[in-house]
Amino acid sequence: MCAIVGIYGNENASRLASIALFAMQHRGQEATGISSSCDGKIFTKKDRGLVSEVFTDEALAYLKGNMAIGHNRYSTAGGDSILDAQPVFAKYKLGEISIVHNGNLINKDEVRQDLIDKGAIFQTGMDTENLIHLIAKNTKDRLRDRIKEALERTVGAYCFIVQSRSKQFVIRDRYGIRPLSLGKLKSGGYIVASETCAFDLVGADFIRDVNPGEMLIFDEDKDEPESIQLFEAQPRPCAFEYVYFARPDSVIDGKNVYRTRENMGKALATNDKDNGIHVDMVVPVPDSGVPAALGYAAESGIPFEYGIIRNHYVGRTFIEPTQEMRDIKVRMKLSPMKSLIAGKSLLVIDDSIVRGTTSKRIVKMLKDAGAKEVHFRVASPEIKFPCYYGIDTPNKEELISNNMSIEEVREYIEADSLAYLSVDDLVDAIGNDRNYALESFNGDYFVKA
Amino acid sequence: MCAIVGIYGNENASRLASIALFAMQHRGQEATGISSSCDGKIFTKKDRGLVSEVFTDEALAYLKGNMAIGHNRYSTAGGDSILDAQPVFAKYKLGEISIVHNGNLINKDEVRQDLIDKGAIFQTGMDTENLIHLIAKNTKDRLRDRIKEALERTVGAYCFIVQSRSKQFVIRDRYGIRPLSLGKLKSGGYIVASETCAFDLVGADFIRDVNPGEMLIFDEDKDEPESIQLFEAQPRPCAFEYVYFARPDSVIDGKNVYRTRENMGKALATNDKDNGIHVDMVVPVPDSGVPAALGYAAESGIPFEYGIIRNHYVGRTFIEPTQEMRDIKVRMKLSPMKSLIAGKSLLVIDDSIVRGTTSKRIVKMLKDAGAKEVHFRVASPEIKFPCYYGIDTPNKEELISNNMSIEEVREYIEADSLAYLSVDDLVDAIGNDRNYALESFNGDYFVKA
Amino acid sequence: MCAIVGIYGNENASRLASIALFAMQHRGQEATGISSSCDGKIFTKKDRGLVSEVFTDEALAYLKGNMAIGHNRYSTAGGDSILDAQPVFAKYKLGEISIVHNGNLINKDEVRQDLIDKGAIFQTGMDTENLIHLIAKNTKDRLRDRIKEALERTVGAYCFIVQSRSKQFVIRDRYGIRPLSLGKLKSGGYIVASETCAFDLVGADFIRDVNPGEMLIFDEDKDEPESIQLFEAQPRPCAFEYVYFARPDSVIDGKNVYRTRENMGKALATNDKDNGIHVDMVVPVPDSGVPAALGYAAESGIPFEYGIIRNHYVGRTFIEPTQEMRDIKVRMKLSPMKSLIAGKSLLVIDDSIVRGTTSKRIVKMLKDAGAKEVHFRVASPEIKFPCYYGIDTPNKEELISNNMSIEEVREYIEADSLAYLSVDDLVDAIGNDRNYALESFNGDYFVKA
Amino acid sequence: MCAIVGIYGNENASRLASIALFAMQHRGQEATGISSSCDGKIFTKKDRGLVSEVFTDEALAYLKGNMAIGHNRYSTAGGDSILDAQPVFAKYKLGEISIVHNGNLINKDEVRQDLIDKGAIFQTGMDTENLIHLIAKNTKDRLRDRIKEALERTVGAYCFIVQSRSKQFVIRDRYGIRPLSLGKLKSGGYIVASETCAFDLVGADFIRDVNPGEMLIFDEDKDEPESIQLFEAQPRPCAFEYVYFARPDSVIDGKNVYRTRENMGKALATNDKDNGIHVDMVVPVPDSGVPAALGYAAESGIPFEYGIIRNHYVGRTFIEPTQEMRDIKVRMKLSPMKSLIAGKSLLVIDDSIVRGTTSKRIVKMLKDAGAKEVHFRVASPEIKFPCYYGIDTPNKEELISNNMSIEEVREYIEADSLAYLSVDDLVDAIGNDRNYALESFNGDYFVKA
Repeated sequence: MCAIVGIYGNENASRLASIALFAMQHRGQEATGISSSCDGKIFTKKDRGLVSEVFTDEALAYLKGNMAIGHNRYSTAGGDSILDAQPVFAKYKLGEISIVHNGNLINKDEVRQDLIDKGAIFQTGMDTENLIHLIAKNTKDRLRDRIKEALERTVGAYCFIVQSRSKQFVIRDRYGIRPLSLGKLKSGGYIVASETCAFDLVGADFIRDVNPGEMLIFDEDKDEPESIQLFEAQPRPCAFEYVYFARPDSVIDGKNVYRTRENMGKALATNDKDNGIHVDMVVPVPDSGVPAALGYAAESGIPFEYGIIRNHYVGRTFIEPTQEMRDIKVRMKLSPMKSLIAGKSLLVIDDSIVRGTTSKRIVKMLKDAGAKEVHFRVASPEIKFPCYYGIDTPNKEELISNNMSIEEVREYIEADSLAYLSVDDLVDAIGNDRNYALESFNGDYFVKA
Repeated sequence: MCAIVGIYGNENASRLASIALFAMQHRGQEATGISSSCDGKIFTKKDRGLVSEVFTDEALAYLKGNMAIGHNRYSTAGGDSILDAQPVFAKYKLGEISIVHNGNLINKDEVRQDLIDKGAIFQTGMDTENLIHLIAKNTKDRLRDRIKEALERTVGAYCFIVQSRSKQFVIRDRYGIRPLSLGKLKSGGYIVASETCAFDLVGADFIRDVNPGEMLIFDEDKDEPESIQLFEAQPRPCAFEYVYFARPDSVIDGKNVYRTRENMGKALATNDKDNGIHVDMVVPVPDSGVPAALGYAAESGIPFEYGIIRNHYVGRTFIEPTQEMRDIKVRMKLSPMKSLIAGKSLLVIDDSIVRGTTSKRIVKMLKDAGAKEVHFRVASPEIKFPCYYGIDTPNKEELISNNMSIEEVREYIEADSLAYLSVDDLVDAIGNDRNYALESFNGDYFVKA
Repeated sequence: MCAIVGIYGNENASRLASIALFAMQHRGQEATGISSSCDGKIFTKKDRGLVSEVFTDEALAYLKGNMAIGHNRYSTAGGDSILDAQPVFAKYKLGEISIVHNGNLINKDEVRQDLIDKGAIFQTGMDTENLIHLIAKNTKDRLRDRIKEALERTVGAYCFIVQSRSKQFVIRDRYGIRPLSLGKLKSGGYIVASETCAFDLVGADFIRDVNPGEMLIFDEDKDEPESIQLFEAQPRPCAFEYVYFARPDSVIDGKNVYRTRENMGKALATNDKDNGIHVDMVVPVPDSGVPAALGYAAESGIPFEYGIIRNHYVGRTFIEPTQEMRDIKVRMKLSPMKSLIAGKSLLVIDDSIVRGTTSKRIVKMLKDAGAKEVHFRVASPEIKFPCYYGIDTPNKEELISNNMSIEEVREYIEADSLAYLSVDDLVDAIGNDRNYALESFNGDYFVKA
Repeated sequence: MCAIVGIYGNENASRLASIALFAMQHRGQEATGISSSCDGKIFTKKDRGLVSEVFTDEALAYLKGNMAIGHNRYSTAGGDSILDAQPVFAKYKLGEISIVHNGNLINKDEVRQDLIDKGAIFQTGMDTENLIHLIAKNTKDRLRDRIKEALERTVGAYCFIVQSRSKQFVIRDRYGIRPLSLGKLKSGGYIVASETCAFDLVGADFIRDVNPGEMLIFDEDKDEPESIQLFEAQPRPCAFEYVYFARPDSVIDGKNVYRTRENMGKALATNDKDNGIHVDMVVPVPDSGVPAALGYAAESGIPFEYGIIRNHYVGRTFIEPTQEMRDIKVRMKLSPMKSLIAGKSLLVIDDSIVRGTTSKRIVKMLKDAGAKEVHFRVASPEIKFPCYYGIDTPNKEELISNNMSIEEVREYIEADSLAYLSVDDLVDAIGNDRNYALESFNGDYFVKA
């Protein structure tokens, strides 16, 4: 996960970068950072915390210059995560460089070991450091060539933005697994961001997605970004962005996320058509289950109701409940609409089931609140395999669908019925014109070192 | 606005009070406080900030005892608001006392002036201080009698919980303007809270609403609360709680808030039946417009769509946008679902229009995002009069409907059409078995000193 | 303890008040506050913390007006001390009032009970609230008369500054127990402060001490403060201010604190003249023992040496040492100068001995560091009685000299010899032209209700 | 400047390291950090702030293991200094490594450029990163050999502690410019620290100084540290440590710092013997001028008086004074003892004069307070040259003695007379058995690449 942004050619570059990161806060809340370039020097500010906490006016004043790159980091383990925040800055042969990265390099351990064997040191646990080393050790004269050759040794799902003291280089891997879009700022210059929802907030018009395998080069000598097709495009956009990760108002590779989720709900409804189950209402697990539930309701004609309320005041720490108050944790985030659901049969829709523990608590909470029946529907296929392409899934053993059949899962979560979307339904819902990355569902690990 | 809670007869009293306040955080985010009683002494902790920030484990350990009262405060002006946080504590003739209060005393200035003339001092701007003075100056031997006589001089919309060193006294005004409900804790003892949504989280069963004009007395010598009808009940529950203020999963005076909002939306749809306007989708202004929009969609058959996304990361401070970024403020909170609404005619539903500035920005934002037409519907009548019964409305001059006709408002917010709910529709939507407080809509200031 | 300040007739009133409070931070570090008056309204800001933390530019901008009063609070017990910070503000019959107070009212409980019996409420534990009630209940037309009559019922050691919306009233008790001085600001207007060290920092010239029993009235209609002798002066300045409490660069009632401390050391030396003890150096317990040690060294001819270093980085919280690291606590604050004292006989001078525990730890620390002999000298008499006039001493049972003879104390702290100043020596050291308050040493509680 | 510490073979390693860093807080207040090793893994925590703020119990619990190294950092410029805090951690060919460093490498730019030319990247501005690269690029099998060869390319004033997953390597440069001492912990294991004042606080016995050019190796297989003389010792201990930088209770290379400062004062007095100037008292600029002033007073027989008080509440931020309050800044830190100095001739002693601005303000402050004459004495020679060996001096142009004669400086600071210590006097005061590093005074830059 994570979000990246690049702003080029705008006097408010760092401010706009911070606003774009704010719009993409859902992709990572642990840490955030921005590097700007001005007069041949790179300025960096990164810290733990939310975008709105880290980027004070003082911080933005420090980040001067008309180009900036930024990053939001998803949670990590360990006691010193500030060191693992991005951008990663380095001085090297050609000057100064700063890099942000979204994704996961599957051959990172081999590359790292090889670099270490040759005498490199690694100060962080981040993939990004690999790329800097590969660029620094390269002997080509031009940064663009060094980046190209560095990427030839880099296998994985990635979007990089490399900022030198006067240029920006934007690269999306040949599969286009992670999203990345290009926009034109109304106030001048360009923006590249993980999600288009950032464009709306900074005042930018969508131009196009960055192509799989493409490198865009922003250079002050040129009005428009230069495009180089570094690798042949073999598009495999990540299906999980549509299922869960992206913000519903984003458009990824031409598809509106909200619409695709509605379609997933419609497909679930179609599959339920003749199964003889009668329910009184369709209830989403908020917020991510809402569009699919609307789709289900529209397709089935069963009323959509907000049977579960989400509490948005849940902060990052709170009064630890006593032993006997254990169940309170899920209820502090989600509350059942008791008077709405009491005595009713519910068709509950969530976006996915990973470990099964949250689903189990939701079913129990609804039944405790008086629901007669709880039929659980999942707007994605069973997750049987860990993702190695940038989504933070637990290891295989913890994935409930790796260990249990659908019927066993149903029994475990104590639902009255349970159904998933098939992989084919998922593909149809997003649009069957693409060859999606579906490894979490079907184990097709197509990116190979 | 504001929320109050009382817990009586539970060893985790302050912890449960904090959890109940957490569930009622939507009623006030500026400050929060709890007083507990233990061994003849009252302990108080109050501070600026959210419930989850103020009530650390250390704070809750300090608040020992098996009874506690708590309060969430809505925003106030001024630089030293900590002094205006509740509970208000005092030592007086009969010992120690602590009070929380939700509502507004309309004769507070006269009572205060009279008390001041007789030599009283006031250290805060809070109504609550009036009541403490009236109780302290009274010469009756029993606190219950002092409270009764103090309330005889107190006119307004109020819910009070008075905690002595061993008892709690709960009072709701004769009109029952502000909500207040009684519940039984599964882990022992009782809870009284502004909204029933707090019951679910602490694990309590709803018993009944506190009656208008009733005083409940919790006393360790009695298993059940004693009830005294202090004043004859003349029920006038506040309609605004249903329109906007309460959480949708609360039940107030027997009516589920979510359902009443759905009904308001249905009434809007019924009124629109023959007006010849064609729209493609019903779009709520989230979060409070959602139930009405679902009702409208259900009644009209027009699809409900999430055309506006709400960003829940908006904190209490953030990068001040530059001059040219002004419009960004509303867009940081609400984002248009561009690809969903582009080229479409929208029926947008919000719960109310106060000053009109937000509505104007929303319409502009939707049109900028490509909406063909924006038909604005308001799930409440025109607000023409300030509320003096505990809702924080601006003064008369700032209320757009005090100054403009519906057509003028439509023109101001640049909507293609605009319609409100009539007062009769509102009453029907909530349930026409009650005589509601509707002063904001019709100027009927029925509470008189 | 505590410090108070009043600034009158200067456009930077609150800023100057904050600087004066900063200079008097040694008199109280727990909480601080300022009230300013502007255009008939009083503004107050108070909070836990140091002056430099609480009075941000934002806070000072809020505290507008050309008059201000301020207070530093010494530590208090309890979990909600913010409510016990000063100034205390109230609305009352004649308008608004704010009061700061340094000292202790010995009849406060009786007055408070009487007020409570008549229906008053007390929201804090502070003496100051008594005075406000007495002023508010009075029926005189003029505030000056109300203050006068209120003070006629008030017995104790006190300095008050009462600020109305346009005036300031400064009062020092008839005994002048706590210090209070008047100065003229070079930038315009007047300052009244607990210690003259504040004058130097704000740029003020010392005019004179406020007389015992005097009330000064600052009024915008008059160029100079009006003086009223409220009570007949019976001067009994507190000896403890000279011994320990005041800053050495302050001048109290005409006597420079540093010089009086030097004199105390000289007297100790004179007493030691023929006692046959040979020491190698005079070592102060820093910082407050330094002037007396310099005096001792000058009188005796024995070299003064910094045998103990004080660490000024000790903050208010730190790593709790493990069981076996117990002794570290005193050593984190005070370090022995090992190579200076090893094998040497030391004459150690501290300002006073209260419980004896710190003295015991210091002796042990010096012996552990190699001192051959430690002769302990105390620059004040034995403290046998608690102070009720504003100094925070423990109760009688905890005072080591209430329970032990000098020889027993010597044995307890494991010193090789121990000597105190006699009461007569103390009086001579400060100046025998005054009748000092000496109750901690001789039990003469001369202030009687 | 900066402080380093290593703890080896003690189960409370990180706690003891934090206590040692606390004792050496005067050597750097900007940032602090500790790395511990446990079970083949290195744990690091570093942050801006004081030792007492950064090392919470939680942080120390994270830093498990029986060995730890730590660092205090002196102030640096720039907005992101957290990245320049130490220890510096890296993964490299032989595993994990963490390094702390005190000093300055004079050939760092050449080495860095050479490393960069060979493809290395630098993520910080710290010298320490050079050493890690040199170690990582080396091909020897044993870390000790890699360190040795790395140091052969490293020229400068340095103390390093290198921690691997199970060993510690301590190195002091061949000149022994920066201090470094070895002690034995009473609770088990060893400590190495920049100053011996840390030994007292953690409970350690001084063993000996680390020799110039020596490497100590701590290894769990050996009871005692192994010693290797890496380079021939050519001792040149830094004179500035004695003049100003070290804590007075430390012993550096066998000399007690306090005693050497007393000697400097005595030498100043000797030089003044026949100059015909009559003064009333010797006044130190606290805190660092105190020992020299005591020495001067002892030698001259002129009384030592605390004519200037230091305020220890000055925090890191405070109310910015208005234009007209400019002079307040020095006075917030230092207050003149008005009644002591008024009308008197003062002999004021400070440890050094760098830019001259503070000295000028002190003279003005004393004269404003009524001093008749101010004779300024400096307990070190004129600083004419920048230090490149680890002391943070300004560049040549800003050093007042680089630009002005003594008489010109006297005129600039408006003193009645001015005298410095000669270089010979300084050497004699410390002890003429050593060949000190005196480059700031005589420009002898003996460390050459």
